[in-house]
Amino acid sequence: MSIFNGNKNFYMFEKHDLNKFFYPKSIAVIGASTKKGSLSWELINNLIKFGYQGRIFPINPKAEVIQCLKVYKSVTEIKEKIDLAIIMVSRNLVLQALDECYKKKIDAILLITAGFKETGKSGANLENELVRRVNIYKMKLVGPNCMGIINMEESVSMNATFVRNTPVSGGIAFVSQSGALGAAVLAILEQKDIGIIHFISIGNKADITENEVIKYWKDSDVIKVITVYLESLSNANEFLKVAGEVTKLKPVIAIKAARTASGQKAASSHTGALASSENVVNTIFQQSGVIRVDTVEDMFDLAKCFDRGSLPLGNRLGILTNAGGPAILASDEADKWGLTLPSLSAATINKLKEFAPEEASLNNPVDLLPPATAEMYAKATELMLKDENIDSLIIILGPPLMLDTIEIAKAICDATKVSKKTSVLVLMSQDENISKLSKLDKTHPPILNSAESASRCIGRMYSYKIWKETKSGNLIKYDENKIKTAKYINVLKKGEYYLDFETTYNILKTYGFPVIESKIAKDLQESVGIAESIGFPLVIKAEAKGLIHKTEAGAVITDIKNIEELVQAENLILSRLKEKGFEKDFIGFVMQPFLKGDVETILGSFKDESAGHLIMFGMGGIFVEVYKDTAFRVAPVSDKEAESMINYIKGNKILSGIRGKKPVDKEFIKENILRLSSLVCDFPEFIEIDFNPFVVSSDKKKCRILDARIKFKS
Amino acid sequence: MSIFNGNKNFYMFEKHDLNKFFYPKSIAVIGASTKKGSLSWELINNLIKFGYQGRIFPINPKAEVIQCLKVYKSVTEIKEKIDLAIIMVSRNLVLQALDECYKKKIDAILLITAGFKETGKSGANLENELVRRVNIYKMKLVGPNCMGIINMEESVSMNATFVRNTPVSGGIAFVSQSGALGAAVLAILEQKDIGIIHFISIGNKADITENEVIKYWKDSDVIKVITVYLESLSNANEFLKVAGEVTKLKPVIAIKAARTASGQKAASSHTGALASSENVVNTIFQQSGVIRVDTVEDMFDLAKCFDRGSLPLGNRLGILTNAGGPAILASDEADKWGLTLPSLSAATINKLKEFAPEEASLNNPVDLLPPATAEMYAKATELMLKDENIDSLIIILGPPLMLDTIEIAKAICDATKVSKKTSVLVLMSQDENISKLSKLDKTHPPILNSAESASRCIGRMYSYKIWKETKSGNLIKYDENKIKTAKYINVLKKGEYYLDFETTYNILKTYGFPVIESKIAKDLQESVGIAESIGFPLVIKAEAKGLIHKTEAGAVITDIKNIEELVQAENLILSRLKEKGFEKDFIGFVMQPFLKGDVETILGSFKDESAGHLIMFGMGGIFVEVYKDTAFRVAPVSDKEAESMINYIKGNKILSGIRGKKPVDKEFIKENILRLSSLVCDFPEFIEIDFNPFVVSSDKKKCRILDARIKFKS
Repeated sequence: MSIFNGNKNFYMFEKHDLNKFFYPKSIAVIGASTKKGSLSWELINNLIKFGYQGRIFPINPKAEVIQCLKVYKSVTEIKEKIDLAIIMVSRNLVLQALDECYKKKIDAILLITAGFKETGKSGANLENELVRRVNIYKMKLVGPNCMGIINMEESVSMNATFVRNTPVSGGIAFVSQSGALGAAVLAILEQKDIGIIHFISIGNKADITENEVIKYWKDSDVIKVITVYLESLSNANEFLKVAGEVTKLKPVIAIKAARTASGQKAASSHTGALASSENVVNTIFQQSGVIRVDTVEDMFDLAKCFDRGSLPLGNRLGILTNAGGPAILASDEADKWGLTLPSLSAATINKLKEFAPEEASLNNPVDLLPPATAEMYAKATELMLKDENIDSLIIILGPPLMLDTIEIAKAICDATKVSKKTSVLVLMSQDENISKLSKLDKTHPPILNSAESASRCIGRMYSYKIWKETKSGNLIKYDENKIKTAKYINVLKKGEYYLDFETTYNILKTYGFPVIESKIAKDLQESVGIAESIGFPLVIKAEAKGLIHKTEAGAVITDIKNIEELVQAENLILSRLKEKGFEKDFIGFVMQPFLKGDVETILGSFKDESAGHLIMFGMGGIFVEVYKDTAFRVAPVSDKEAESMINYIKGNKILSGIRGKKPVDKEFIKENILRLSSLVCDFPEFIEIDFNPFVVSSDKKKCRILDARIKFKS
Repeated sequence: MSIFNGNKNFYMFEKHDLNKFFYPKSIAVIGASTKKGSLSWELINNLIKFGYQGRIFPINPKAEVIQCLKVYKSVTEIKEKIDLAIIMVSRNLVLQALDECYKKKIDAILLITAGFKETGKSGANLENELVRRVNIYKMKLVGPNCMGIINMEESVSMNATFVRNTPVSGGIAFVSQSGALGAAVLAILEQKDIGIIHFISIGNKADITENEVIKYWKDSDVIKVITVYLESLSNANEFLKVAGEVTKLKPVIAIKAARTASGQKAASSHTGALASSENVVNTIFQQSGVIRVDTVEDMFDLAKCFDRGSLPLGNRLGILTNAGGPAILASDEADKWGLTLPSLSAATINKLKEFAPEEASLNNPVDLLPPATAEMYAKATELMLKDENIDSLIIILGPPLMLDTIEIAKAICDATKVSKKTSVLVLMSQDENISKLSKLDKTHPPILNSAESASRCIGRMYSYKIWKETKSGNLIKYDENKIKTAKYINVLKKGEYYLDFETTYNILKTYGFPVIESKIAKDLQESVGIAESIGFPLVIKAEAKGLIHKTEAGAVITDIKNIEELVQAENLILSRLKEKGFEKDFIGFVMQPFLKGDVETILGSFKDESAGHLIMFGMGGIFVEVYKDTAFRVAPVSDKEAESMINYIKGNKILSGIRGKKPVDKEFIKENILRLSSLVCDFPEFIEIDFNPFVVSSDKKKCRILDARIKFKS
């Protein structure tokens, strides 16, 4: 079908920016070479061979005809309207080509040429100039340093890349930051039965980023699942918002590579130190429902399952096999992903007995043994899918003995169609049969080559189903006094620094946090008076300019029981400060009641440049540094997200009461997480906040922030 | 070469039990069918087609000739000596076949027939009878319910399975508990270039187990690496010993499936509860140097690397690629496995500049970009392998643009041969080229299809190299008074029960453990006297028959400061015991000094039926239940193993001193691990021991076992 026949699909996205990239009616290839084997020659060849349904205009000042197409000296020579310009000239000619596109009123540019910011400073300068002009010209640009775009919809049939491949029908969209990795995937579409419908290589992401692409794909009916390969997040906070919306409609699976490139942050704050770039990425993905995978194989195995399979309604898995070992490996993996393998109903087992070999195992997994025939497999598949104890089914076909694999596999495929339940076929050690079978049966279920992967996929599909059905939480406001709090903040001097004790205390009190009663004593005499008003036992902490790690400096003494001990403790701290050179910067002693015997947690916030303010909650004390048992979310945090933070940490078992202890007041922890989220949304100038320890107890009145630190930046 | 030509290899194992299985000069196939397509027909066909170098004697009472071979009615009819009988008759005829083998003096039996203990009770009874006769007849038996044996050595050329395949030369031995999984692997040898030399399917392991097979392969010159697929360990303690020896000579890679089948043990003891069957398997593998992998792909990727590659001398990895994305994924994975990616030397970089494309990245990873030619790849491979900063090299070849993959890959293979350093070639998305290339170049380096897997393999090879070079530790004896300790034990009554306080205290004291000074008071009056002798603050714990979880029962009160508090505390505990019905079983109050402020650890032992006594060390307190931060070893534990236990746990950071605290006395912890190991070796009747908490401090004198529990069984 031609695009000029008024095909509806072709126009459905007209309102979006990226339509001209995925549905161009005409393409100019600037830098088209006459030389067979060159990138541009191959790209034009791919467009033609794939049956592109629009017109192609090669641009080359020195040629007349390229691959039977009339050649133009410049885009400005063309009379017809051009939707998309693909620029493939050498990098010193790129800006000129861009200018000519502007003259010709082309506003969608696919820039394949490399040699920009990926090569160093002069390349980066050129890229900056490129972006400047793209903005002035109000163009949209994909690239540079990318590999092109594919739209396999029949009405478009566009392979605007230089990778030869054979399309497979399907609903997978794929955006790749790496061109080479994209090429490696495109090369195996047929072999692995990966049904890619849209592909885009975004290269250096000078203008269009993953966020725009993912958003664009949200409403497309032809796209069932989105796959993403990234080496960096262009804007993590925007990604969170975009992906968070898209994943409620269709799954997004992502690889985020370059894990080790995480910048090592100085450990000046606990929350800051724990918010590694890995944690940020994991938080963004988790909070937006993006499924993170580590390998390309995992990504496309799962994408195939989403593309061809339905979502499992529950976590009860059935396994049918002719090989015991792989079924056990699949069961092990299923367990890791929260799936169970229930017994089949008695009715199913009785029916299986009618035809299964005598030695067959009819527990779940059902093992029909190597001589299992096509007929046995088909019957067992139907029976298991009909069993009410089972939500999804993995059918493993090990290399059958003296039987035709394709015949058996085809019978299984047919049998799966009796049910809408999720089923995945595993052809072990028979890679070549996957593509054979997929050609033979266009509506086959997902076919993988690894039983473990099948379990992993179904586990992840089930988790996704839960995510999709979970309603978003609410943003809760408490009685925070924003106006009064602002008064404390408005008087702060500009710069980046830790707030002093009094300001910190006043802000937190005003905003409604349970900071422990704290008073500051400038000297010994004053401290005696305060001690009598607070009562013993108490804690004293030295307050001095620049003194951040008080415990390590020996500037905190706990469990002071009387005046005598108080005097000794203050003298001890003063002499320690002297040793460390803090004598002149001494401000006073912060004095607090001494609470003990409860659970120490940590609650904090850290502003990440790309993701925004992260909120962290975790187990405190010396254990935070060792077990790093913490949960992160990007603010604003909803009530459900706050609950999920508390439930996520392993220490939740301790919070829930262990060895006969009462559970702590989790509602109150939640309230404080939400208050902290509100605080940093109201006052983004607070770039680091740590409540450490935040002591919690079954009694709300005993839940107290014992120490707090705020870093301010304006 | 025929085995009858006196080939040396053929006889080299004669002293071993399994020689007749792997090097038989004559085979009788009992139950040989004339029907093409039957299992026995296929097995004989495989023997012939593979070019088996010995004689085959088919046994079938009703046939004359099978596949051109003379058929015998029974083995007893054969005049020639038979080394190996392969029994394939239906299961009701198996015992008769065995009896006939005995008459014919055949002592090596490969029993393929299924339908034994895997099918239930009657099958299990049959298997018991089978084993009984095998023992009486002094035979060795492989199976039942197995798939056969392969020896691909040219002088033997025996494929005694019913799986058709094409051999690939190599030095990998493979033992599989699952026949079907074995078959799945055999089906892809050529496709994946897996050079298997010996294969054995051990089925139900009625007689010969993995332990005998692995031990047998230890001294074979043709075997470079051993791979193992297990669903159960036949004898974990023996496995530990056998594998521990073999891995010092050659690597053993294992999959242990059926993780979820782990029996859930009741949490009657901490060590017992934590010693899950998963932990036992991990301990056995770790302690014996066996490399545990989860998937078949991982196992054979790694086996290929060991088979064809040399061990890396250090952990410095170089990566050469034409595709950025896969190189980043490989770098991420390398980091996980403890490898580093150092910069190349200036000399190397300068030489690379001479021919690399202008935009190429010459940092490590070196990215030559998609147009990289065979010549460039070859030169860069040689240069990087010669670089003194690099110990091993991964060469990634993404699908090249318009160039011949095989030509480039061949050039890379040749270039790797200039160096003895480890190199791994990755052919991405070009599975079919792996087998092509391996035929073209018989001495090629390992070729994988995944860049991440290549990093994982090199990381594991490096870890193995460290393991291989690490000398075993020593078993240390302290001043334990075994004879005096035995006196306490000899008087104990038979049965399975927890020892009472006094016996526990006496045994531990006598054996040299730092149990805290503890006295037992029968009543209030007695306790006042003891309190005065011990001094305040102190701890009291109720001692009552059957009272195990004292803290949960509220039967422990700490930090008692004076006589008044003591009286109140004792009354409180007594009323709690009354509530819980322990009143009549009350024995007395154990009284100890109250120590505080130090680090709580847990030290214990648990007797596993298959592995023997496990020793456990970990972080104690409420955290042990949540973070499960523990390390296990099977006793006897050497000094080095005790050190590695302490270093293994995450809490080692706390033990080493955190936030300015002094490190605890790790030497003393080690001493107590070793004492405990001695204790359970001297007295295996102690089936569970828990020191919880074992409080440790920088001062040895303050390291004390505060609570101890011993379960005795005789």
